[in-house]
Order: sequence, then C-alpha cells, then structure tokens
Amino acid sequence: MLEFRSIDALIELTFAEDIGIGDITTESTVSPSQQGIGTIIAKTGGVIAGLPIAARVFEKIDPALAFQTFVSDGDSVGDMAPIARVTGSAKSILTGERTALNFLQRLSGTATLTAQFVAAAAQYDVKIIDTRKTTAGWRAMQKYAVRRGGGHNHRFGLYDGVLIKDNHIIAAGGIAQAIGKARSAVPHTAKIEIEVETLDQVEEALGAKADILLLDNMPVDLMHAAVKKIAGQALIEASGNITLDKIEAVAATGVDLISVGALTHSAMPLDISLDLEVKIGA
Amino acid sequence: MLEFRSIDALIELTFAEDIGIGDITTESTVSPSQQGIGTIIAKTGGVIAGLPIAARVFEKIDPALAFQTFVSDGDSVGDMAPIARVTGSAKSILTGERTALNFLQRLSGTATLTAQFVAAAAQYDVKIIDTRKTTAGWRAMQKYAVRRGGGHNHRFGLYDGVLIKDNHIIAAGGIAQAIGKARSAVPHTAKIEIEVETLDQVEEALGAKADILLLDNMPVDLMHAAVKKIAGQALIEASGNITLDKIEAVAATGVDLISVGALTHSAMPLDISLDLEVKIGA
Amino acid sequence: MLEFRSIDALIELTFAEDIGIGDITTESTVSPSQQGIGTIIAKTGGVIAGLPIAARVFEKIDPALAFQTFVSDGDSVGDMAPIARVTGSAKSILTGERTALNFLQRLSGTATLTAQFVAAAAQYDVKIIDTRKTTAGWRAMQKYAVRRGGGHNHRFGLYDGVLIKDNHIIAAGGIAQAIGKARSAVPHTAKIEIEVETLDQVEEALGAKADILLLDNMPVDLMHAAVKKIAGQALIEASGNITLDKIEAVAATGVDLISVGALTHSAMPLDISLDLEVKIGA
Amino acid sequence: MLEFRSIDALIELTFAEDIGIGDITTESTVSPSQQGIGTIIAKTGGVIAGLPIAARVFEKIDPALAFQTFVSDGDSVGDMAPIARVTGSAKSILTGERTALNFLQRLSGTATLTAQFVAAAAQYDVKIIDTRKTTAGWRAMQKYAVRRGGGHNHRFGLYDGVLIKDNHIIAAGGIAQAIGKARSAVPHTAKIEIEVETLDQVEEALGAKADILLLDNMPVDLMHAAVKKIAGQALIEASGNITLDKIEAVAATGVDLISVGALTHSAMPLDISLDLEVKIGA
Amino acid sequence: MLEFRSIDALIELTFAEDIGIGDITTESTVSPSQQGIGTIIAKTGGVIAGLPIAARVFEKIDPALAFQTFVSDGDSVGDMAPIARVTGSAKSILTGERTALNFLQRLSGTATLTAQFVAAAAQYDVKIIDTRKTTAGWRAMQKYAVRRGGGHNHRFGLYDGVLIKDNHIIAAGGIAQAIGKARSAVPHTAKIEIEVETLDQVEEALGAKADILLLDNMPVDLMHAAVKKIAGQALIEASGNITLDKIEAVAATGVDLISVGALTHSAMPLDISLDLEVKIGA
Amino acid sequence: MLEFRSIDALIELTFAEDIGIGDITTESTVSPSQQGIGTIIAKTGGVIAGLPIAARVFEKIDPALAFQTFVSDGDSVGDMAPIARVTGSAKSILTGERTALNFLQRLSGTATLTAQFVAAAAQYDVKIIDTRKTTAGWRAMQKYAVRRGGGHNHRFGLYDGVLIKDNHIIAAGGIAQAIGKARSAVPHTAKIEIEVETLDQVEEALGAKADILLLDNMPVDLMHAAVKKIAGQALIEASGNITLDKIEAVAATGVDLISVGALTHSAMPLDISLDLEVKIGA
Repeated sequence: MLEFRSIDALIELTFAEDIGIGDITTESTVSPSQQGIGTIIAKTGGVIAGLPIAARVFEKIDPALAFQTFVSDGDSVGDMAPIARVTGSAKSILTGERTALNFLQRLSGTATLTAQFVAAAAQYDVKIIDTRKTTAGWRAMQKYAVRRGGGHNHRFGLYDGVLIKDNHIIAAGGIAQAIGKARSAVPHTAKIEIEVETLDQVEEALGAKADILLLDNMPVDLMHAAVKKIAGQALIEASGNITLDKIEAVAATGVDLISVGALTHSAMPLDISLDLEVKIGA
Repeated sequence: MLEFRSIDALIELTFAEDIGIGDITTESTVSPSQQGIGTIIAKTGGVIAGLPIAARVFEKIDPALAFQTFVSDGDSVGDMAPIARVTGSAKSILTGERTALNFLQRLSGTATLTAQFVAAAAQYDVKIIDTRKTTAGWRAMQKYAVRRGGGHNHRFGLYDGVLIKDNHIIAAGGIAQAIGKARSAVPHTAKIEIEVETLDQVEEALGAKADILLLDNMPVDLMHAAVKKIAGQALIEASGNITLDKIEAVAATGVDLISVGALTHSAMPLDISLDLEVKIGA
Repeated sequence: MLEFRSIDALIELTFAEDIGIGDITTESTVSPSQQGIGTIIAKTGGVIAGLPIAARVFEKIDPALAFQTFVSDGDSVGDMAPIARVTGSAKSILTGERTALNFLQRLSGTATLTAQFVAAAAQYDVKIIDTRKTTAGWRAMQKYAVRRGGGHNHRFGLYDGVLIKDNHIIAAGGIAQAIGKARSAVPHTAKIEIEVETLDQVEEALGAKADILLLDNMPVDLMHAAVKKIAGQALIEASGNITLDKIEAVAATGVDLISVGALTHSAMPLDISLDLEVKIGA
Repeated sequence: MLEFRSIDALIELTFAEDIGIGDITTESTVSPSQQGIGTIIAKTGGVIAGLPIAARVFEKIDPALAFQTFVSDGDSVGDMAPIARVTGSAKSILTGERTALNFLQRLSGTATLTAQFVAAAAQYDVKIIDTRKTTAGWRAMQKYAVRRGGGHNHRFGLYDGVLIKDNHIIAAGGIAQAIGKARSAVPHTAKIEIEVETLDQVEEALGAKADILLLDNMPVDLMHAAVKKIAGQALIEASGNITLDKIEAVAATGVDLISVGALTHSAMPLDISLDLEVKIGA
Repeated sequence: MLEFRSIDALIELTFAEDIGIGDITTESTVSPSQQGIGTIIAKTGGVIAGLPIAARVFEKIDPALAFQTFVSDGDSVGDMAPIARVTGSAKSILTGERTALNFLQRLSGTATLTAQFVAAAAQYDVKIIDTRKTTAGWRAMQKYAVRRGGGHNHRFGLYDGVLIKDNHIIAAGGIAQAIGKARSAVPHTAKIEIEVETLDQVEEALGAKADILLLDNMPVDLMHAAVKKIAGQALIEASGNITLDKIEAVAATGVDLISVGALTHSAMPLDISLDLEVKIGA
Repeated sequence: MLEFRSIDALIELTFAEDIGIGDITTESTVSPSQQGIGTIIAKTGGVIAGLPIAARVFEKIDPALAFQTFVSDGDSVGDMAPIARVTGSAKSILTGERTALNFLQRLSGTATLTAQFVAAAAQYDVKIIDTRKTTAGWRAMQKYAVRRGGGHNHRFGLYDGVLIKDNHIIAAGGIAQAIGKARSAVPHTAKIEIEVETLDQVEEALGAKADILLLDNMPVDLMHAAVKKIAGQALIEASGNITLDKIEAVAATGVDLISVGALTHSAMPLDISLDLEVKIGA
C-alpha cells in the first residue's frame, strides 16, 4: 500500500531501539519450534486504526507469521473486542508484541478521539481537521488515523500549503502585502490561507482576495460576526484549543472547518493487548 | 552530547515530514534578512525536558541561530516561565518553531508526570521507573525525560535486560526451567527478572534464585505478603496500571521499584509556545 | 541554505559514481602540497544557475578550498565570462572539476532556455512555468534553475497540487464527478486544476467550479475562444509542446500561465569550463 | 539484474521528489479497483533503452502490475511503435507514468544519438565511446544506454582508469614524470592514457611507454600525422567536440576510439508516451 | 533469522567494495545462460560458522541460486569436507564466491579457535567467553561464531553491561564509590562487574557488594587466593592474555568465566574454498 | 582526507555495535568535567597504520578531544613506543578507547606483516601486492595499510581490473576466446590479466596478447621456466600461499609482482594499548 511506504523506516527505527541485537529473554526461554496464537483485543472500545502497521511489524519480524484481522481500520468496536490474530512462532510473536501494540494503541487513540469530535459536530456541515502538532516521525500515520476516525487533513507540512500567520503578516508589512507576496511566489495550484483575529483583519484579508480565513482563538460571538461578514467569499477555518465541550457551539457558527490539535497531541492510547496462547508440545 | 547522537535521524525525519522542499509561506513572505527574537514560554508550569533537542533542531535549520536557555532540563518552572530564547533570522525561527515545540512539549510532559509520581512516593525508599510503552522512534528521549523528572529507567529494550513473563514461563515449562535457561544463555552481566502473580510463584522464583521479582497487578495486600516473603532475597518491582492515586499505597508495601507505563504512553504535552518578535527594518 | 539541503545526497551519489575509491590519476601525479587557481568560465553566454551547488561540491571534496563567485545565480553573462574561481589544493580542484561543471552546465542551460521563453513573452502578463518532466534526482535543482531564469514553478510533485487529466476524468465518471471527488478528499488549501480540450469541457469544468483550467494542446484560435468563455472565472494554463516560435502567439491569447516541458527535459548544457593554473614550486 | 542494482536508490529518490506522501489527484479520483492498460509508444522512432528500469519503476509502485515488452533495449523502432504494455490498477499506472517515461525518454535519447554516431563511422574499425560528462546519479544508466546504442564505454570514473591531462603533466613536471608516477602508483592492471596536443608530445609519450594516447582537439591533418607516427605503438583515442558532421573524417584518420561527450550531455529525449485505457466497470 | 538481520548492511558494504559497478571479468567472459555447481570445501578441518551468511550473500547476488548445506554451523568437520553447495548461474556464483568465502573463513576460524579453548578447559565448570576486541562491523557475527564454537558471550557492548575498570575507579574516587554510582544510575536489571588486581581490591569490592569480580592479569597463585577469598559471594571472571597453554591452569583455580580476546582478534581464517564445475553447453 | 571518506560509515557501524545508547559504566562513574590524557603505546614494535582513523574515531566521539601523533602511518617503531596522545574529557577517551584501538591494532598488523614480506624480497625488483581476501567493510583501509607497509595494491575489486581465472577460461571456451571477449567488452583503459598453470597455457596466453600473466601455485622451477618463456612480453604475477619462508625464492625467479593473501586475511593485530591518566580534581 503506497500510503504506508514511508513507514518502514520508522518500524526499523523501532526495532533498533527495542530489539537491537535480539530479545534475550525470549531467545533463551522459548524454543524456535514452539507455535502460538496471539489474539489482539481492544480492552476498551473505540475506533481502530493501525492494523496494516501492526501486520507490517509482524511481517518484518518473521515473514512466516500469519496476521488475520477481524475488523478494519475505521471500524468502531466495543469493550473486549478481538480485532486481530497473529499465528506462528511463539518466539516471533513475543518479540513483536510490544512494538505492534505501541502503534495500534496510539493510532486507535487518535481515531477514537477524532470520532468523538466528528460525532459532536455531526449535525453541521463542517469538517474536523488536524494540525501540524504531530509526533516526530508519526505524521503520515497520525493523519491517516484522523481520516479513519472520520476527520479530514489540513496541509501535510510547511511545503504543501500556505498558511500566513501573524508573524508572517508583520514581517511582510501587512495583510495585503503578505497575500500578494505569497500569491506571486507559490505555485498557482495553492490557495492562500491567512490567520485573522479581528473583523478589520477579516475585511482586509477579503480585500486582498485570500482564499481561506483562519479565525484564530475568536470567541463564538465574534466568530458569528466574521462568518456573516465573509458571506461565502472565502473558506473559513476555526482554530484555537477547541475542546469536545465547545465544538458544537463553534460548528453552529457556520464555519467550514474546525482544526483540533488535540487529535494528534493529546489523544490517550486505546487500551489494546495481546493474549498469547502457546501450544505446548507443538 | 553522546546521549543525543541517535536523535539526529529522528530530527531529519521530522524535517522531511514537515519541511520537505521548503516552508513556502515563510519563504514567500519573510525576507531572508529579517531578524527576530523567539522566546519559548511554558504557559503552564511543570518540569522541563528537551531543551538540547530544541537547540539541535534550530541549529540544523540554521547554524547561525543563537539558542540561549534560562533553565535546564529537569528544572521545575511556574506558569508563563520563559525557558529559552532563539535569536537570528526570523525566517529560520518560523520554519523550526513547530518542530522544536513538538519535542519540548511532549518531553516536558513526561518529565512533569514523572515528577508527580516521584513526589507522591517521596517518603519511601522506592524508585519510579519507566517501561517499554514508548513512542516509536522516541525511546531514548522519553527515557531521558523520565530521568530529568526524577525517575529511573528500566531496561532500554529487549536486548539489554531479561524479563521473564508468563508466556516465557509457559513456553519454557515452568519458572525454574525458564530461569535456568535464561541464566545459561545470557551474558553473566545480566540479572534475571521474572514476573510473578501469586505467593507460590514468589516461592518458586526465589528457589530458582531469580535476581528480581516483578509483582504483576497484585492487590496491595498480596503485595505486602510478597514483600515479606521475599525478605531481601531479591529486588522487587511493582507493576500494573499504577496511578497517581494508588502509588503511595504501593510504595508503602516496601517494594524497591514501581514501573509506570503512563510516564511515556499517557503524559499530556506541556503547554509551551514560542513568541516571536520580528525586528522590522533590521 | 535550506533550499539545497536535499541536494547533498545527490552530490554524494555523484562522488560515489565518479570518485569512488579515489582519483587514481590525480593522486599519483599531483603532490598534495601543490596549489592551484581554477577559473570557471562561461565559454558561451547565458543565464547562470548552480553556483551554490558547485561551491558545495568543492567544499565537500576539500573544506580548505576557497570558492569565490563573480556573478550570482540568475545573472546573464556574455561569452567567455569568468563566473567563479576556486583556489587551493590543485589535487582537490582536479578531482571535483567534472562534477561541479556537470551541475553548472545543465542548470545554467535550463536557466538560459527559461530566460529565452520569458523574453519571448515579455510584453504579456503571463508566467512561464515548468512541468514534472525533470531528470530523476534533479527536480529541486531544475525548478530552482527555472526560477533563476525568470520562470515560475508548477506544483513540485504529485503530492502538493491537484491536476486532473483525461484519464482521471474517465476513471471518475466525468468532469463534475472528478472535481467533486478531489475537492472532498484533498486538503482545503489546494486548488483544483483540470485539463480540458474542448469548449464543452471548459463549460463543464467552470460549472463544477474548477479553480484552474489547463488548455491542453489547443490550437491558438480555440485557445482564444476558451479564454473568452472563461472570462476570469478560473486561472488558465496553456500547455502542449509550446516552442519558442509559438510562445508569443500563445501568450497573446490572454492565458495566465504557459507550461513548457522543454525547460527541464531539452535544455542544452551551457558550455562552461574550468581553467586551472597550477603554481609550480608553491 | 546485477547491472541495475545501484539504480534502486535513484528510483527511490525520484519517488521521494515526485510522489512523496502520495498522488493526491489519482488517489481522490480513481478507485483502487479500477483496472487499466497502459501502452508505451515511441512517437518518433529511435533506439530504445531503459525498459528494465521502467519495469522496475512500476514494480516498485505496485508489485501487482504486469509489465510486458514488445522490443528489447538496443532495438531500433519506427515512429509510433508500441514498445511495452503495463497492465493492472489504473491508479498505480497513473502514479508511475511520469517517472517511468522520464527514464525511458532520456536513455532512449542517448541510445539513439549513439547509434547515429556509430552508423556515421560504420565503415571504419573504430569504437565510439562516452565520457564522464554524465548526469549526476545517472552514470551507470547512461553508459548502459551508450552500449545499447552500439557504442562502448570509457572508464567508469576517476577510480578505474588513468587519464593524464595537461594539468597533471604540468603538476608532475613533464610527460615522462607523469607517466612514471602513475605507473608506479596504480594497480598493474591499469593502462596509462595520456592527453597529447602536438607531435612532440606524441613522441615524448611514446618514449615514456604510454599505453594509450588521447589526441585532444587536433585538426584532422595533425591527427593523421599523429596516427602515422604512433604506428601501432599505442592505442589512439580522438576527442574534442566531435559532431556527427565531423566524425567520418576523424574515423578515416585511423584512430582506434572516438569519444563523444554529447552522447550523454546533449542527447534530446526520445518522444515516448503512455496511452492509458481505463476499463470502466471492471 | 532475526539474529542476522543487521548483517545485510555489512553484506551491502561488501558488495559496494568488491563488486561496485560490476564484475567486469565475469560479465565479459561468462554467458548469462551458463550453469554451474559450486562446492564449498573446508580444506583443513575445524568448526564451521557462517553458512547462513554465505547463503544470504548468494541470495542477494542472485535470488535464483540454490544453496544447500551439508553441515550446520557449530559442526566440526575434517579436512577436505564438503560443507555446502551453490547451484545456478555460473556468472552469479563467480561474482559472489570471494565475498561468501571471506565471511565463512573468518567466522569458522573463530568458531574453531573457540572450540580449542573450550576443549582445553572441558573438565572444569567454567565458561569461555569473548571480549569487545572484535572487528569493526563484525561484532554480532563474531559473537555468534563464539557461541557456535561452544563459547559464551560477554556483554555485547558498552551499553548492555557494567564493567568498572581501573580508570573508572580512579575517576570515581575508589571502588566503593564507583560501585555505588553505577548501582544508582544503571537499570536494576544490570549486575555490576569490577576489575580487581589485588586481594585488597577483592575485599573492597566484596564489601561494596559487587556482583562480579574480574581478576585482571593475576598470576595463577594469586587467582587461587582470590577465588578462595571470594568464596561464592560473587561471580569470578579471569582475564588477560590467557593462551591455550595457560587455560587449563586458570580453569583449575575455580573461576566461573575466562575471557579470551584472541577468539575474535587473532583467530586464523579456516582454509575454505569453492570448487566450481561449469556445465558447458548447458 | 579523501582517502578515508568512505570509512565514516564503518566507524558509525562500530559505534552502533559498541556504544549504542551509551557507555553505561563510564557515564555513571566518570564526571563529565574530569580531564584525562591517554597515551597510545605500541607494546610490541612494528609498522604503524591507522592513526588518522583513530583520530577520526575520537573526533566523532567528542570534537573537543585533542589528538596528537608522535609518528606517522608507515613509520616503524620499537617496543613500548608511544605513538599518539589524546587529551580531553576522560569520559570521552574511555568511551572511544576500544574502537580506536581495534582499528589501530589490525591495520598496524597488516602494515607490519607487509613490511616483513617487502624486506624479505628487498634485493629483487619485485612488488609485493595484496588480494581481495580482505575483511568485509575494511577493504579500503586494509589496502591503505598494505601501502603504508611498503606494499602495492592489486585491483580494488571486481570492477576495476580484469583477472581471468580457470573458470572464466572454461566458460569462455578457451584462453584465446576469454581474452578476446574481455578485450572487446571492457574499457580500453584496462589491461587483461589471466591465470596460467602450465607452460602451454603461458604460450597460449602470450599468443592471445594477454597483458599480464598470473602464475598460479607454480613450483619455483616451473615459475623460472615460465618467466624465461614470457621474456618481457607480459607482466608476471606470482600467486598461491606464498609465505615469508618462500618469498625470496619466488622473487628470485624474476617475476614482477608477488601477491600475498595473508597480508589482509592472516595478519596478527599489533599489541597497542592506551594508558589513561585521569586528572583528579581537574
């Protein structure tokens, strides 16, 4: 799958830090011929994400392991749901267990939290999107988990989207200048998004033909006014510590997109474990 | 610093995912000659960790940036405390800001949570230690953050310590067999640690001369009894979803070490931001 | 310079293929203590690009070499113009000569050809842009050379811009469907560009609110009609084997952008050489 | 195939620059289940080179694609000749199309130009050879394309052959000294080639028992005289901006080898395209 | 096999240094269709180690080669014993021959020497162990060869075991201080080993509860006295230029482990060659 | 130094295997502020090689260390000769000690053995050369050590020299055919060397105009006869388990080159150690 091509390097890094020269406990206590069945269970329910990565981890540990899934990424499961099974050398399963779970737990945590935000805003025509507040090395996976949870992605990085913030505005000498400079320098395929904090800035940004306005940390009332003033002349993104409590009110203002840093920086890992049944005498 | 040598690869990965072919917003709106001062501020207080990594991020973005720290890793700071300052090209500061903050926020989150656990058990002679439940690619940094928060480290990975768990015991054919196999196979420099769940297992493990006993998910009463039975014949580690609420009771049983997975898998990022002052006309 | 960060890997590849275990001729005939002055000369005039890369090549061969430039990338020079000088160990200069020239010649060739296209369309308000028809490993450098020649860049790759071509339209089931699918899937920061070949397709694409229309291989008359019909509702890019002979006529139709594959796939290298003066007895 | 082992790194570099985090257009508009047939066509005739590389590109994009060739590298084809077919996921074909074509077009361009030089000198017993004026990262492929066009290769790089040029002679203190130094330092398996510009230098080089003489930029008359003087005592290579117009006259002088930089630095890409037929409803 | 996962990088390095752009002799003289059978023979007897690595070398050269073993790593063979056979393309066998043999010869040399040390001390309850005096890049393989020869491994590197030497003692301010500092800083899973040279140091180390004492360069008499004084309170390792002549006397002192640097730094390669039978007309 | 550019990768590999996440002994017992002076001493005399590599090891461990040499690579020293000094952080010196010594000991071993062979053949006009029997990853360094010991290098690998062995001859269908095929395929800069075992083969090889004859495992008498028959028509290399005892007799036959596999595969490491003086209270 193209989507996960870049993830092999991270898996290798993980093997380097966790396995290194070998799993000395397992190698000394478990015979290479012992077979096992590992069942991966979501102890608490949520939205699953990361199964192809867990599969890849076990495949790299030992290509002879069989990995079977009971659900797909994006599925919502209840407490104690079995989500996958890995069968083969008990030694290989034990060696890969922690690494596979570390990926599954965190990515399912992000998918689950995203689904909660999406549900809370479900009656409005708004997209829940992520930010660049991701974990070093994990961006592609975390953005994938956001999609599996029903969210959408903001730009991937600094290179594939323009987002003019206050410091860029100051450095460029004003909103119109910043938009103009960006417009003339970046590929014509990129829209220009700009951060605004007041209605005056909204007006100025519209005057300079910004494609997208990011309403940063605005109180809900002000957001309402801004949406009204913009009146369809630009896309509108709301941003700034928007919690599950606040999201419905924000969505009700009529913004097009709500970005939530917590999806990637503060999601709790889902409690997922692997139960191994070792076949003695096998 | 030797300690961070392996972290360069992760920083490069982060640049690849965040910066790629360049920060198109900053490059088009900020002149290369503009100077700036970025002050890094802990908006909520806590224990700081990761300053040398933030410094390394900015150094790799632009060797001409100056990075000055106001506190050291391991220091506890109050709300709104300035912790570092980066001076030089405004363009470079803007490009590195998010990456540097992502490291600082997460590592300080782990150091802060560790410090809370350490404080809660402070009147006992017990070490708070981490686990292998770390983030892919981040293990060395997270274990460092645990130390800066006053905790200690468990083994680094599967290769530098023996920890015999239930599945190893089953596969080896019993506690004595597992310990024996491990003892004869691993370097003589390694102690043998084994997971036990009952007093019978404690007895069996002591009989097989285990060096360390890991009391896994034991109720506090049982833990008390186990500590009494062990009576100094082995080191004792307590483990199993030990929260801030429960830690004092666990520490009071007399165990030597308490391992806490949450230090690395569930610490909230500390709220740290960078305030940039762009010098216009500079 | 951030812009060239990714180029080090290509330079290393070049050293691997050209130098490998060493320059056996130079090492056996030239004493390490011999000093030299190498003057880099554009034997035929043109627009120079690639000087920082040539500098980097020599710096990596031998950090003690001094590299001094007489012009800047983007400058237009006449026949036999000296453009840079490298001073230091004659051995190091000889070893790096071919690699440095290979970069300079090709990139200056692209900058020079770009400048010719830009000049030919100078009296119209149109941007000359590049394509993805670049040399494997050279894209960042070639796009840089296009900018130095006065051109602009199209999207960098498949990941940072949407360009719906005929096959995408067929696969999606029509123009409206293709635009709709792309709009809902890609980040909100991306504009939607679509290839059209007839006036009917122009109409359909405008109806689906495409942001950019690429007029593909249209005769100039048809292009005129298309520009008139679009009437500012979308950006317009002209494309399809547009040569120096044809570019003025294309520009006169009123399109916003003209993309030219030849800038990167068919530019002749500029004739640049290095004259080395070895100081005997130095 | 051993020959192409080192090329994987370059293909990966190309994916990094072209595909990165994904082909956002194709991923959003083309269903993963859609099948397609891509026919690769040489729109203008020539000598084909690079089919195994195109095959490798598609294999790396998607191992399930089938790649079938209608001709072999080195074959000469007419206008509009189908040369290969790729079958499978339409999405994968679209994603790899540009990368595969970029390789095929340039390498076939070099093979075609080489064949023209070889044909022009066909009635003489002379080899047409390449130079080190190759594209960074492409040397192995370009030298392969020269062979497919009927040419031969000069040394691969600075490390596997000795070629003493004027600066080496000056630095060593004369022709005899340079040859002597090289002879004593390089492996005994290497011949010594030296650049000469006058008949006196020819004599001196023969006296020093050079194995090969490179006649650099000599007028044809002088070349004739040099060949006569050498009289079989050494191999003779002619060099210096030798064009298709001039090659027959050069070959007629009786030299053994003619090196042509243009084969790799100035060959126009052959016009090759991919026609995709998407199977709707498949 | 997990054990050899990290060795691929070294094999690639070897291909880079030995094969590079290709085996020009074999490629020009041997037809790709010629088949061959290569029999690998231990010309002098010994203990074999490295067969999986030889297999991996040939697999990487050409996945179509078949590699069949007649013995296993750790087996002892007599003079002229055939140990493996590789069948397939004669060209591929010739290209990989030297690389495969270089690995087999050295690793079998280490296994053979280890077996000689183990045999010489066989009547005592003592383990023969290796040191860190390994060849750069070869540590995992050499330690594996020691195990195949019947020896055991000391710590893998500086990171997975504590060994306090004289300079650490001086720097820490004494034996007790050094042991105390190490104890409080390293994971609780690590034993503390310390180098001692006199009986006073033995006493001091025991007082500080060292887990392991390394008797460094002690005469056999002193070693006897030390073993007696230690009396089971710690593990005992003997070290210091212990040759085959001296090992029985050292083992007789009652030490638990004897470390021998020569196993990895001075083992002669076993004389192993490959006899190739080329099938003509095949 | 260009010569050692490729060695950084091997040093990094060595750090990975020896230091990994850190030197836990030194880090816990030695204060970062403690200074030390390490004197590197050749306990037994010999020819030194590898000082720049040892310097590079320490520089990479800690750029603040100062490395001073008392002799140069290629110098012959007596027993107990100090050869270099490293000054700075005691912690850094201890961490790099083993790695630096491992390089120095082996390379000096090769240089010393080479010097012994060279001395034994000193009164004849013959070069002592190495083979491809090198240690994986070490070829460039070992060939360098051979040169420092007064020897010369054979081809670097399979790619930069032609050596036709018996299997190539059989596969090609005879000596003349093998030489002819090689001559027409490899660059004109390469000489053709061929292995011969009988006088008939010598004659056949001379008839086919081989440039170099390798007399493989010939008795000295036969070698004499072969040299006489060749009579200057080709270079002559003698090969085949030529020991220090036999080398003078071989040299006396009049061959031009004698290749000795033992230089790289069987040289004993020179006994070199590092004496560290820790400055207490510094």
